[in-house]
Amino acid sequence: MKLLRFGPVGQEKTGIMDADGQVRDLSAHVPDLSGPAVALEALDKIRTIDINALPVVTDPGRIGSCLSSVPNFFCIGLNYALHAKESGMDAPAEPIIFSKATSALSGPNDDVIIPRTSEKGDWEVELGVVIGRTALYVSEKDALDYVAGYCTINDVSERSFQTERGGQWIKGKSAPTFGPTGPYLVTADEVGDPQNLRVTLKLNGDTVQDSNTSDMIFSVREIVSYMSSFMELRPGDIIATGTPSGVGMGMKPQRFLRPGDVMEVEVEGLGAQKQTAVAAK
Amino acid sequence: MKLLRFGPVGQEKTGIMDADGQVRDLSAHVPDLSGPAVALEALDKIRTIDINALPVVTDPGRIGSCLSSVPNFFCIGLNYALHAKESGMDAPAEPIIFSKATSALSGPNDDVIIPRTSEKGDWEVELGVVIGRTALYVSEKDALDYVAGYCTINDVSERSFQTERGGQWIKGKSAPTFGPTGPYLVTADEVGDPQNLRVTLKLNGDTVQDSNTSDMIFSVREIVSYMSSFMELRPGDIIATGTPSGVGMGMKPQRFLRPGDVMEVEVEGLGAQKQTAVAAK
Repeated sequence: MKLLRFGPVGQEKTGIMDADGQVRDLSAHVPDLSGPAVALEALDKIRTIDINALPVVTDPGRIGSCLSSVPNFFCIGLNYALHAKESGMDAPAEPIIFSKATSALSGPNDDVIIPRTSEKGDWEVELGVVIGRTALYVSEKDALDYVAGYCTINDVSERSFQTERGGQWIKGKSAPTFGPTGPYLVTADEVGDPQNLRVTLKLNGDTVQDSNTSDMIFSVREIVSYMSSFMELRPGDIIATGTPSGVGMGMKPQRFLRPGDVMEVEVEGLGAQKQTAVAAK
Repeated sequence: MKLLRFGPVGQEKTGIMDADGQVRDLSAHVPDLSGPAVALEALDKIRTIDINALPVVTDPGRIGSCLSSVPNFFCIGLNYALHAKESGMDAPAEPIIFSKATSALSGPNDDVIIPRTSEKGDWEVELGVVIGRTALYVSEKDALDYVAGYCTINDVSERSFQTERGGQWIKGKSAPTFGPTGPYLVTADEVGDPQNLRVTLKLNGDTVQDSNTSDMIFSVREIVSYMSSFMELRPGDIIATGTPSGVGMGMKPQRFLRPGDVMEVEVEGLGAQKQTAVAAK
């Protein structure tokens, strides 16, 4: 299933894609998508609905983030070897975990707002994992059984805030609109192997990131199991699993976001995003 | 006002302390305490209720965390000079921000579960700030107008997970029960100056932390303003504002949590906590 949210900010309705690629209005059955509403058993209930009996949405308009809110917006750092290298850091011996403020969550095509005083805004296409079942001390063997689905994420970053302002990365990952998520939550059954998805990002039409989740240092299976040894993951938690090489910080010379820049962000099978960078008011 | 939640885990009801120190059942008016329910306007509505007309709760039983969930569980690092020193680090030039997984939230007197493989569990009494109004680019002058209230927090930490497993601190701050919060959300009007509160922690009856929020490097006012330049704070967000010296990591020899250890944690005027450390199953 491909689940989504559409409508103006704060007034989104839930939808589901039908076999013909039309959006169907799911809101009579599922008021919103977040937390327990994306737990595995809740998704199983959606599977029992006759999709073709739902109203067709001829013009969904704006697409919202595929989750209305998240208990946690976790990220994995330096999870592609070439990106670690372009960042001037060693490939990690075990997964690096950090988080974004949950208020960073935004729609896949919403403008990305460059914060006041920002000079080093940057892009990061990533495979997003959505947790579907409470996970604590989960083995790698079982880890994918805890995944509800996947989504496209742009882990927008401000490199100066991230690394030159006191050490912990959250400061550079958390501004409003720094978390374009969606368009779809694609359920795990429809994705199959999460380690064989092309990930691409175009800046102003030029491909700058082009890799495959097969190149991840730590797989989704390993990440979920590993994280669950330190914390309890819960339904609706997002994990952005790291970005490949091709970010602005790694270019020579470095190239950071300027107002008017357009980012096109895609993970194979999970849908495409398109954002324009604008200056904060 | 002193607001609280009481009852078994997951079935807590809301309550308010009356002038005689009795718990009154607030659940007919306020179903739960989190997010918009602790926004400044929501608190103003509670102020219009005749507290003495609410049912007295003669035996509230277990006290839950004073918020049922939080959009973000932020923390400030090394915010007391002596604690920075005992941690072997320089006092920071600007606030260090990190976060706990929101699933770490727990009741003030619930057992603290020492994770599997943990050898360096530690304690941290902290003043907790609860945001009451969306805050972005807020001046220091106005910052306290965005605070709903305050609470006692034990920012339980695992030092090996925090600093020896890949750099970002969230890994050592996020295990289930690592965030005892409460007993009360004390509204800002009742606290007055947040920079003049004694903070203490006893381990097995011995006082190991004893300081005052007047010793903070960065005040609540500075922290809220500073954070709001990097991210949008929202009603119900918690900020744990850092711990003074006296943690186990700073002792010579170091002394970490063992099953059976009892922590008594208090911030002046915000209520006391008491946790027993137990081993994870």
